[in-house]
Amino acid sequence: MRLGTIEREGASAVIVGVSETEAAVVDGYADVAAVIAGGAAATAAIDAAKSSGARVAVDGASWLPPVVRPGKVLAIALNNSANPDRIMRGPETPAGFIKPASSLIGSGKPIRLKEQFGRVHPEPELAVIIGVGGADIPVEEAYSHVFGYTIINDLTSPTMRDADTFHYRAIHPDPEAADGIKYVDSWVSYPARYKGADTFGPIGPWVVTTDEIPDPHTLQITCSHDGRLVTDDNTANLRFSVAEVISFMSEFMTLEPGDVVAMGTALKKSAKGGAVQNVDLTQLGGTIEVSIEKIGTLSNPVERR
Amino acid sequence: MRLGTIEREGASAVIVGVSETEAAVVDGYADVAAVIAGGAAATAAIDAAKSSGARVAVDGASWLPPVVRPGKVLAIALNNSANPDRIMRGPETPAGFIKPASSLIGSGKPIRLKEQFGRVHPEPELAVIIGVGGADIPVEEAYSHVFGYTIINDLTSPTMRDADTFHYRAIHPDPEAADGIKYVDSWVSYPARYKGADTFGPIGPWVVTTDEIPDPHTLQITCSHDGRLVTDDNTANLRFSVAEVISFMSEFMTLEPGDVVAMGTALKKSAKGGAVQNVDLTQLGGTIEVSIEKIGTLSNPVERR
Repeated sequence: MRLGTIEREGASAVIVGVSETEAAVVDGYADVAAVIAGGAAATAAIDAAKSSGARVAVDGASWLPPVVRPGKVLAIALNNSANPDRIMRGPETPAGFIKPASSLIGSGKPIRLKEQFGRVHPEPELAVIIGVGGADIPVEEAYSHVFGYTIINDLTSPTMRDADTFHYRAIHPDPEAADGIKYVDSWVSYPARYKGADTFGPIGPWVVTTDEIPDPHTLQITCSHDGRLVTDDNTANLRFSVAEVISFMSEFMTLEPGDVVAMGTALKKSAKGGAVQNVDLTQLGGTIEVSIEKIGTLSNPVERR
Repeated sequence: MRLGTIEREGASAVIVGVSETEAAVVDGYADVAAVIAGGAAATAAIDAAKSSGARVAVDGASWLPPVVRPGKVLAIALNNSANPDRIMRGPETPAGFIKPASSLIGSGKPIRLKEQFGRVHPEPELAVIIGVGGADIPVEEAYSHVFGYTIINDLTSPTMRDADTFHYRAIHPDPEAADGIKYVDSWVSYPARYKGADTFGPIGPWVVTTDEIPDPHTLQITCSHDGRLVTDDNTANLRFSVAEVISFMSEFMTLEPGDVVAMGTALKKSAKGGAVQNVDLTQLGGTIEVSIEKIGTLSNPVERR
């Protein structure tokens, strides 16, 4: 099934898709996280909504992020099979960062860019919604922790990334030094601004449950700017799978129900060329769309402030 | 006043300090974020608690993070006046990253370290609790957005930081190239694991409101490992002030009530030498304490798993 969260009558409400154009309101649940927490009672409420719930048109719905305020949005970096060619040195395991909940917006809501954000480009990604929390999850059990899949546009500012990169001498222990330390030439970059600015996380509109997507690595994923295809890739090209990412990351951090795991950018160029990194939304404005097979289309207009 | 959040009778509860050793339970508020949201009603409940609320001993309280599940924990990096000597290239503005709420633990709760976390060292820091949310906050209005101050130990694994650093060729636009792109030699590091692992965010125990700390840049801050002083610094040595950080960061991301802003590590060595980076908790175990003048002491034992 397809679930979404919308603004309705001054509050947030969960809807379940009943046809291409129509959805039913699931009474008593404020967002998809509440459905996950609700368990069997939520399933019953969804069934009741499908048969007799209030109908809303999908077109023109005021979408919110499916999970309005996730405990964390864990985003995996450089996780595309097209990447290793470009990587001179990098981890052999999934690496990532946290996007703040305050950066998330629903489908249709404007991406609002300021001059000081610099260059901003889209990153079309498959996102996993965690259903059952856990730590130290074995790879072979990982999919049982997934509630469903959605779409995220992991907006990125290379201008702020460059600005927030330090080349510095890190302090490391040195038992042989008089003061016990030595300095090691290091680079670090900090993603709070370049990945976490307001509106840098369009997400949704739908969460499609795992029963409809038994294998998340067979899905065509495209990104279009003002109708022009920018990227045409497939989730088969992700380097680390959903199961590998869930298993590895849960060794370090507990995954909680409603957490979002963004799987890394689809990169493959479309037949007409161009890279997502070439689409500078700060300059171009327009509308940016990410579509994933079986999930839907996330569409956001750009406002330049 | 001093407010904290504890576990009591199977739920979370807010307490207000009434003496060095005793606190009163504030009925009806689950954590400090609820007090912030409660406004005048919460103030009345705190007054009632002080005069007639149930008393609990401060010693032996089961502390939770003051804000149990903040919308974001925004941590500022390399923000000590001792840093510029070590920085060959770095931003002229505050830079940071997001720690997930799942990494937070209360005072007294164990830091649980696994072999695969590698080297883990403490980072003693002043933390700001946002009271009034906002974006584009002018420097001169920044303090009116602060609810109070607490202590955070921003645990860091340089082993995972090194592992999750990429040296790669970033894709940049190039209007003169046939495919519109060029490759630029870049370094990026991703902090999800090295800053966000479970128990990497001891925080609390108390939030002290701004009326008791009109100037947060006059506070002695120390870090001790098993009673041995490791760092003895002062918040006067922070490079960017609380007001500057709030103002700058709010240009990019909306600060919300209950958000935590960690101000960056106190670095100055104690008279007896040693750097926080030398305290490898994975090897040493023991107890790590951070004290800030007028706020209190955050103390956590280390369990090696």
